[in-house]
Amino acid sequence: MDRSAEFRKWKAQCLSKADLSRKGSVDEDVVELVQFLNMRDQFFTTSSCAGRILLLDRGINGFEVQKQNCCWLLVTHKLCVKDDVIVALKKANGDATLKFEPFVLHVQCRQLQDAQILAVRSTHGLEVPLSHKGKLMVTEEYIDFLLNVANQKMEENKKRIERFYNCLQHALERETMTNLHPKIKEKNNSSYIHKKKRNPEKTRAQCITKESDEELENDDDDDLGINVTIFPEDY
Amino acid sequence: MDRSAEFRKWKAQCLSKADLSRKGSVDEDVVELVQFLNMRDQFFTTSSCAGRILLLDRGINGFEVQKQNCCWLLVTHKLCVKDDVIVALKKANGDATLKFEPFVLHVQCRQLQDAQILAVRSTHGLEVPLSHKGKLMVTEEYIDFLLNVANQKMEENKKRIERFYNCLQHALERETMTNLHPKIKEKNNSSYIHKKKRNPEKTRAQCITKESDEELENDDDDDLGINVTIFPEDY
Repeated sequence: MDRSAEFRKWKAQCLSKADLSRKGSVDEDVVELVQFLNMRDQFFTTSSCAGRILLLDRGINGFEVQKQNCCWLLVTHKLCVKDDVIVALKKANGDATLKFEPFVLHVQCRQLQDAQILAVRSTHGLEVPLSHKGKLMVTEEYIDFLLNVANQKMEENKKRIERFYNCLQHALERETMTNLHPKIKEKNNSSYIHKKKRNPEKTRAQCITKESDEELENDDDDDLGINVTIFPEDY
Repeated sequence: MDRSAEFRKWKAQCLSKADLSRKGSVDEDVVELVQFLNMRDQFFTTSSCAGRILLLDRGINGFEVQKQNCCWLLVTHKLCVKDDVIVALKKANGDATLKFEPFVLHVQCRQLQDAQILAVRSTHGLEVPLSHKGKLMVTEEYIDFLLNVANQKMEENKKRIERFYNCLQHALERETMTNLHPKIKEKNNSSYIHKKKRNPEKTRAQCITKESDEELENDDDDDLGINVTIFPEDY
């Protein structure tokens, strides 16, 4: 089986599997983007999160980062109100932490070149310890303030998803145009389009995250969470 | 100039430049690791941070993530005491946030295969808004608690640097052995060692982060912050 056929088979297998996330479905805010990628031969997505606010409770050894000891008291992909957090905190008996996690997307790519358009990871988050051994360490006023910050980040995050989706559509359109009319290549100095060489090689698939895309921000505090896995067809 | 020579030249140029970080030097806890990588032909490092606790003050639009509006009230690569934070917070007139940022390392690699051993990125952090428009939103008791958490993370982070450095040494020794005695290759089923094909190609350098190294953790809450850039010699 050639590498393209192998990638197609792998894609079909992955996309036919049940969604194993706790939620069991793709988040509303990224459904369109995920479908857009999965419609294309050179990509498929393996997981995604549109961004979320969550409240975790960790066992007595609050610092231990094992997920096993970690209970989810609350999770939302929408804006969050104080009362929901206050109610959820009543169930905490360890160290509760409020987190904001931005958009994240895992994409499998058939070729290294296809990963050039997919960019950057995020540090645009929040991680705030709120209680220790069941005792609340902050005031309700602080929780209110914190949720304001978290909700603003959620809204900013939504804008970034849209911006990323627009950039992605634009880049793939340009790519299609270039394939249809190879002479455009000479006029276009995009580094993406110049990366068109192929070297089939029988290495194993590897996980690779692309940073520094010219069209997307690449600031520590201003980027998206995208992981790209390259299928070993082309390097 | 062949690709190896070009990489050597690029490496020499980069390493001869002044250290442009605020601190102006490599952090003590990663000096040995950084030297270990830079001694090897196939790597060089472009930036690193051993991990740090920092207190930032952001302008009136506290949410805006532009670094320009951001003032560093305090930064330490060591454990941090409450009084230092209390004193530093007095200078805050915007929205002050305490952050813990784990170990991060940027490595340029001559070949894609060399990136296989360098792994994973971290979400093992803290980002805690403490004041709003100059007004402290938490108690001193909370700051004390928070610094306990931050200091524990700092110590755990130090262990991870050591673990990573050990794994790296081990992997590179194995790699050297394999090059000296190619027959070992057949007996060794490491995916790293099996990725030994070469395909020189005239693409531009790209930034790639490797995840899922078998020898290092790859849990959302339990990994290291390493960015790997591949030099275009080998894919």
